[in-house]
Amino acid sequence: MEQLLEKALILQEALPFIRDFYGKVFVVKYGGAAMEEEELKHSFAKDIALLRYVGIKVVLVHGGGKDITNMLNKLNIQTEFINGIRKTDKESLDVARMVLIGKLNKDIVSMLNKEMSNMHGAIGLSGIDANLLICTKYYQDGEDIGYVGKVKTVNTKLIRELIQMDYTPVIAPIGIDPESNQMYNVNADMAATEIACELGAEKLIFLTDTDGILDKSGKTISSIHKNQYKELIEDGTITKGMIPKINSAIDAILRGVRKVHIINGKIKHSILIEVFTKEGIGTEISL
Amino acid sequence: MEQLLEKALILQEALPFIRDFYGKVFVVKYGGAAMEEEELKHSFAKDIALLRYVGIKVVLVHGGGKDITNMLNKLNIQTEFINGIRKTDKESLDVARMVLIGKLNKDIVSMLNKEMSNMHGAIGLSGIDANLLICTKYYQDGEDIGYVGKVKTVNTKLIRELIQMDYTPVIAPIGIDPESNQMYNVNADMAATEIACELGAEKLIFLTDTDGILDKSGKTISSIHKNQYKELIEDGTITKGMIPKINSAIDAILRGVRKVHIINGKIKHSILIEVFTKEGIGTEISL
Amino acid sequence: MEQLLEKALILQEALPFIRDFYGKVFVVKYGGAAMEEEELKHSFAKDIALLRYVGIKVVLVHGGGKDITNMLNKLNIQTEFINGIRKTDKESLDVARMVLIGKLNKDIVSMLNKEMSNMHGAIGLSGIDANLLICTKYYQDGEDIGYVGKVKTVNTKLIRELIQMDYTPVIAPIGIDPESNQMYNVNADMAATEIACELGAEKLIFLTDTDGILDKSGKTISSIHKNQYKELIEDGTITKGMIPKINSAIDAILRGVRKVHIINGKIKHSILIEVFTKEGIGTEISL
Amino acid sequence: MEQLLEKALILQEALPFIRDFYGKVFVVKYGGAAMEEEELKHSFAKDIALLRYVGIKVVLVHGGGKDITNMLNKLNIQTEFINGIRKTDKESLDVARMVLIGKLNKDIVSMLNKEMSNMHGAIGLSGIDANLLICTKYYQDGEDIGYVGKVKTVNTKLIRELIQMDYTPVIAPIGIDPESNQMYNVNADMAATEIACELGAEKLIFLTDTDGILDKSGKTISSIHKNQYKELIEDGTITKGMIPKINSAIDAILRGVRKVHIINGKIKHSILIEVFTKEGIGTEISL
Amino acid sequence: MEQLLEKALILQEALPFIRDFYGKVFVVKYGGAAMEEEELKHSFAKDIALLRYVGIKVVLVHGGGKDITNMLNKLNIQTEFINGIRKTDKESLDVARMVLIGKLNKDIVSMLNKEMSNMHGAIGLSGIDANLLICTKYYQDGEDIGYVGKVKTVNTKLIRELIQMDYTPVIAPIGIDPESNQMYNVNADMAATEIACELGAEKLIFLTDTDGILDKSGKTISSIHKNQYKELIEDGTITKGMIPKINSAIDAILRGVRKVHIINGKIKHSILIEVFTKEGIGTEISL
Amino acid sequence: MEQLLEKALILQEALPFIRDFYGKVFVVKYGGAAMEEEELKHSFAKDIALLRYVGIKVVLVHGGGKDITNMLNKLNIQTEFINGIRKTDKESLDVARMVLIGKLNKDIVSMLNKEMSNMHGAIGLSGIDANLLICTKYYQDGEDIGYVGKVKTVNTKLIRELIQMDYTPVIAPIGIDPESNQMYNVNADMAATEIACELGAEKLIFLTDTDGILDKSGKTISSIHKNQYKELIEDGTITKGMIPKINSAIDAILRGVRKVHIINGKIKHSILIEVFTKEGIGTEISL
Repeated sequence: MEQLLEKALILQEALPFIRDFYGKVFVVKYGGAAMEEEELKHSFAKDIALLRYVGIKVVLVHGGGKDITNMLNKLNIQTEFINGIRKTDKESLDVARMVLIGKLNKDIVSMLNKEMSNMHGAIGLSGIDANLLICTKYYQDGEDIGYVGKVKTVNTKLIRELIQMDYTPVIAPIGIDPESNQMYNVNADMAATEIACELGAEKLIFLTDTDGILDKSGKTISSIHKNQYKELIEDGTITKGMIPKINSAIDAILRGVRKVHIINGKIKHSILIEVFTKEGIGTEISL
Repeated sequence: MEQLLEKALILQEALPFIRDFYGKVFVVKYGGAAMEEEELKHSFAKDIALLRYVGIKVVLVHGGGKDITNMLNKLNIQTEFINGIRKTDKESLDVARMVLIGKLNKDIVSMLNKEMSNMHGAIGLSGIDANLLICTKYYQDGEDIGYVGKVKTVNTKLIRELIQMDYTPVIAPIGIDPESNQMYNVNADMAATEIACELGAEKLIFLTDTDGILDKSGKTISSIHKNQYKELIEDGTITKGMIPKINSAIDAILRGVRKVHIINGKIKHSILIEVFTKEGIGTEISL
Repeated sequence: MEQLLEKALILQEALPFIRDFYGKVFVVKYGGAAMEEEELKHSFAKDIALLRYVGIKVVLVHGGGKDITNMLNKLNIQTEFINGIRKTDKESLDVARMVLIGKLNKDIVSMLNKEMSNMHGAIGLSGIDANLLICTKYYQDGEDIGYVGKVKTVNTKLIRELIQMDYTPVIAPIGIDPESNQMYNVNADMAATEIACELGAEKLIFLTDTDGILDKSGKTISSIHKNQYKELIEDGTITKGMIPKINSAIDAILRGVRKVHIINGKIKHSILIEVFTKEGIGTEISL
Repeated sequence: MEQLLEKALILQEALPFIRDFYGKVFVVKYGGAAMEEEELKHSFAKDIALLRYVGIKVVLVHGGGKDITNMLNKLNIQTEFINGIRKTDKESLDVARMVLIGKLNKDIVSMLNKEMSNMHGAIGLSGIDANLLICTKYYQDGEDIGYVGKVKTVNTKLIRELIQMDYTPVIAPIGIDPESNQMYNVNADMAATEIACELGAEKLIFLTDTDGILDKSGKTISSIHKNQYKELIEDGTITKGMIPKINSAIDAILRGVRKVHIINGKIKHSILIEVFTKEGIGTEISL
Repeated sequence: MEQLLEKALILQEALPFIRDFYGKVFVVKYGGAAMEEEELKHSFAKDIALLRYVGIKVVLVHGGGKDITNMLNKLNIQTEFINGIRKTDKESLDVARMVLIGKLNKDIVSMLNKEMSNMHGAIGLSGIDANLLICTKYYQDGEDIGYVGKVKTVNTKLIRELIQMDYTPVIAPIGIDPESNQMYNVNADMAATEIACELGAEKLIFLTDTDGILDKSGKTISSIHKNQYKELIEDGTITKGMIPKINSAIDAILRGVRKVHIINGKIKHSILIEVFTKEGIGTEISL
Repeated sequence: MEQLLEKALILQEALPFIRDFYGKVFVVKYGGAAMEEEELKHSFAKDIALLRYVGIKVVLVHGGGKDITNMLNKLNIQTEFINGIRKTDKESLDVARMVLIGKLNKDIVSMLNKEMSNMHGAIGLSGIDANLLICTKYYQDGEDIGYVGKVKTVNTKLIRELIQMDYTPVIAPIGIDPESNQMYNVNADMAATEIACELGAEKLIFLTDTDGILDKSGKTISSIHKNQYKELIEDGTITKGMIPKINSAIDAILRGVRKVHIINGKIKHSILIEVFTKEGIGTEISL
């Protein structure tokens, strides 16, 4: 009985957080180990289901990573990364589309539907559907890196209609230029950021493979404010790989997202820990 | 961190129950110690709030008990119980109305509103409002016991409209005969049962001051089926005080309520334990 | 037949008024003799029903007066008025709640429901339900007079939803501070004024025990404009007791209520006479 | 003051009737003197406005009578009546259309709109609009009497939409066969009867130029039941002219209209007297 | 087969126009030969039906012309035109109403309904219904020309509700002054212009008996811009009869109508040619 | 001008068909050459857009065919067809998903969106999204052919919501068993048939690479009725390859689809020719 009571008390600890986030929109960027390891995948799906059941409107944006590279290898297509973004020729774009939309997106959708059987369910979309992500060509420091896109407009109308009807949109980051009908590979972090900004999300959560932003001693910095991040870049605390992510995060909070979280997807239920406990996990960026 | 993870795991244990009860109606009869002791009152309010946040539609029906007797004593009005039901003259009816509707109901409403600040909130009603509980005079074994009513019709339209708009109705069991405009004191267990039946509730939960229905050795019987209860009455397991409650429960499941629970309101968070754990608590009656 | 025709002609005389008030909101402060004498109570209920049937949205706010004092006396609780407002300690507040919400409010609700049997009906509420009247402590000329509240916010959302669905809200003036969950006794005139202002009512009608505002010769002043009232106070026409009422009225018309009426509830059907005849009754305050 | 009170009391006498008819549909056949004499026209418009304001859904069907004959005369077109129905050739049909729809209908509409300025207003329609009255050719006792139609189908969808949106439809009885696009003159009594039946009206009221159905001594029979009317025809009480009207009335009550009234439109406000007084006026036919 | 393919290709040529006009409002002024010759009437009805089926919201405004003059002649009523507008005394107004509303309007409505049998259908209205066209007296260059009106207000609420519900309003240009209940004959071009402006129509199309606006050599000027028309009037290209029409057109485009077209209703399907081909027909006026 | 008129006449010829199909649901199975050749793809997209603009609700189901085989070849995965259905192991299923959902589906969606720029647009879905196509394993004549599914349930709720909101669903035939989360390759003809039946479609159109069903002389049989097809199979007219298609067609018309069409997608605009001309194209199967 004592054990049961303790369980009840822990459920009750979540109440103030549930209350605060009731009816709010969370955009979650899903990727890395959490999308690759069987056990983490399941715990992630359960976490998203729980967020949905306590009244949080979740929009998932996922990346592709290793699966795209694996398929390119199988097809003997060379691939190259420029500052972390894949140079994307026509063939690579096709592979990216197939892996992202045909494989990963649907694996995520089916996994979520299993955990939300009493709800309207998850719907997999790409930026092509109903012109969800209208893009132009993206140049990396002026360099042409192929069919890589930059989001110009988000069709929030469709997303809002779906979350209003209690569906859970799962979005693969392939965009389109409706003038030329050219499709583009879009960086998932950027896609998630744009969607969160356009929806005025309460939270934008990046699931990564690290414990957030670390200080020089390797310890997670639990909270960064708008004014601190430049200093952290200048003094070398935030290193190369993290700079685009922190830039996206700062951009998001300036455009109205209340909080951005960078958390470790390798830790089971990290997302629940972040959302429903006082201590939280990873790094939180806010105004 | 380990502790945080454990908390997350316990939240996750609730997921299958949350999934099953999403959007369902629970009618909760609130009374006894859980309505009298300060600490239990707060833990109860938090539990109801949690049910509400995970998408359960809750309708509360409360009793009065000691407060009515106290006020009758203060006013030197004699009072008498016949088989557990208060003989109710005109003066006693007025006192019952004032204590139930003016005091207890509003204390409960304000307590709940504090815990559900991000929702539409609790609304206190009586069976008089919009003729919610239409009654006729009740005779106890043929004996006239005054202004005690028996529910003839429940105005489910108003209740449904309110829960549809996400309000939480809290109902004081005073009914009315709209022909004569005579008001009646109604037994709270009966009122809750009628409301649960008319709404086709998923659960009807009685918060009592005992551990459910006990066997002869004093241990709680965790589950009773429709066919067993007569035997339990005949062999003397279910004794006098519990007989009306078990009769209400059997009536409810025969009229479409899925499960009836008799649980101990003296145990903090007993309601959460019942709803969100496999083990449960108290006695469950089902078909 | 002649008599029948005359009846028809009198009904027709009401047409221009009905036309003007169709769909408009009237807030009626109900109190005094009209709430105490059996015959007046019934004629009042019929009048409100008639207003409702011709398409006027009515919100009733009632006071308590003698009944509270009677109950305090029965319970041997001392009570004191400071400038017309009851000094309210914890015990008195409980009594006020019980009498106002548990007794008077429900008597009014049932009386109205009897006259509006083909409509959605009256619903009794207090300022506690869904935090309808959010209050802070009120100090009378700087003096602490106990749990007496001042309305800070009116939850017009709930009131509008109910009148939109064609219910008739009947409101007992007990408010709440949702931070502390402290309840407060609120002067019914003030509560009615705040509700009328926040709803942008067409009319705010005070039922009193006098013939409106009288001139020095004791004759009713049938109409007062914004600019005249100061003079009337200064020259002693409006005496002490009426000053808060006229101040409320002026406040209301400045905040958008079209007309305020002070009429004699002791005269049967005074409300109908005011609303549906050219001559009217009592005193009308307008811009 | 006494006089004012009396007015209020007379308004109150209407309350039970208002209560009963709130939200119900009345179909009124308008014709005869009430449509021709200036004073009666205005009192009729005020009466309809009053019915509308107290929540009654009114559908008007009007005839043409003298105006059509006048116009035919002016144009030197011969016209002939066969058992009270005008033999209608192509030219007469055109005149009937012009007078009914272009003149009378719009006179009625504008007159009503003047009295209902705070409502959505009256809309004039014919059976041609949205195929409101689908007709076939009508043969009078097997004889071809030209373009006279018999209602086959009523487009209740449009009527319901308009009354739902609080418009007041005013219908000129010209029907159409949508196959051939042939228009037909329809007897207004029959059109009103069909519309009342298809809408399941509460009342069908015929405004005529007589005091209802008279007994042999010339006194109005105030009430006729389904079973009595055959006898009244057989014993010669109901004479030729009234037979089609009584047949329509009996047809209507058998098809679900609650009550049919035949009242004298020459008496000012006869419709109000019928609806809002106990005594009533004219003859009432019911099951 | 080749022929079938060609048909398909021609259907496809319409696609870009259909795409552009989907859901847009067209106000069509219908009159002249297109309203008089049997074959043109049918081809016009089919064209309007086609516009409706491809998702264009059509509002028709029709004139009267010859039919009114014919009826006036038959009734020996003198009539006179002042600068193209009929001097309208009481008798002429009655005739105009009867011909426009009772005859022409319903002929158009029934013709359209035949072609749109699978839709909600056409509804004939005048400016009197629900005070659709509120007017004041119009003075022609200061001269009193009788009951000729000038549109002050268009009740767009009713028109919008009807086109929203997929009805097709057909409006006869008789207006009303609701204060005096005086009706007025309104020039159909002006009525159409006011309705188009108040609805913010995409197109205002005038069907006339000429090939649009002609240059001095008699060739149609296919396109006129806001800035050119003054010059065209000054240099005598646009002559007397066309001046009011071009003024209406310029007024319309300045008040938000996107394009105004003056096309020849004598050419079968001219309206389809204008809307669905690149070449178009007649004269187009735009900013 | 003559040419313009002819165009208008051809548009008008389509009117009766447009009228009949307004608001109806067409399910189109898209595949074969029409999905592979650039020019046919564009003409198909324009045809679907035209259907949508004239008010037809279109649901597309597409196959995969050559693209899947090509990709399997590139990846050196062996593949085998059993009676026209691909034996599908785990690797082949992944390839089918990627090609169908990630590549073909999105190519179709973007092509359609280009032609429907003024509408809500196309949305690509698979049977996995919101459990659109719930499947069980399909055994080909008792033989296990791997992850090939048979549709058990269609989630018509989502499809109806989307077409109600004027989106155009484009569905890739990959289904799911939500119990095991196993995905299945589904024959596109069967998927289209099930969807058409569950939606009660007006038409089910199969785009193939042949001229419909041919008689022994090689000429298209333009129309087949329910009762004829058995004979046609028995006498060898309908040969092996067509048998499953005709069986699906017969199944569909028996379950409520009004007409099934088998038409040649190699002929440009064959779908328009079928829908909008009297002659039609290909073979039509009906009751």
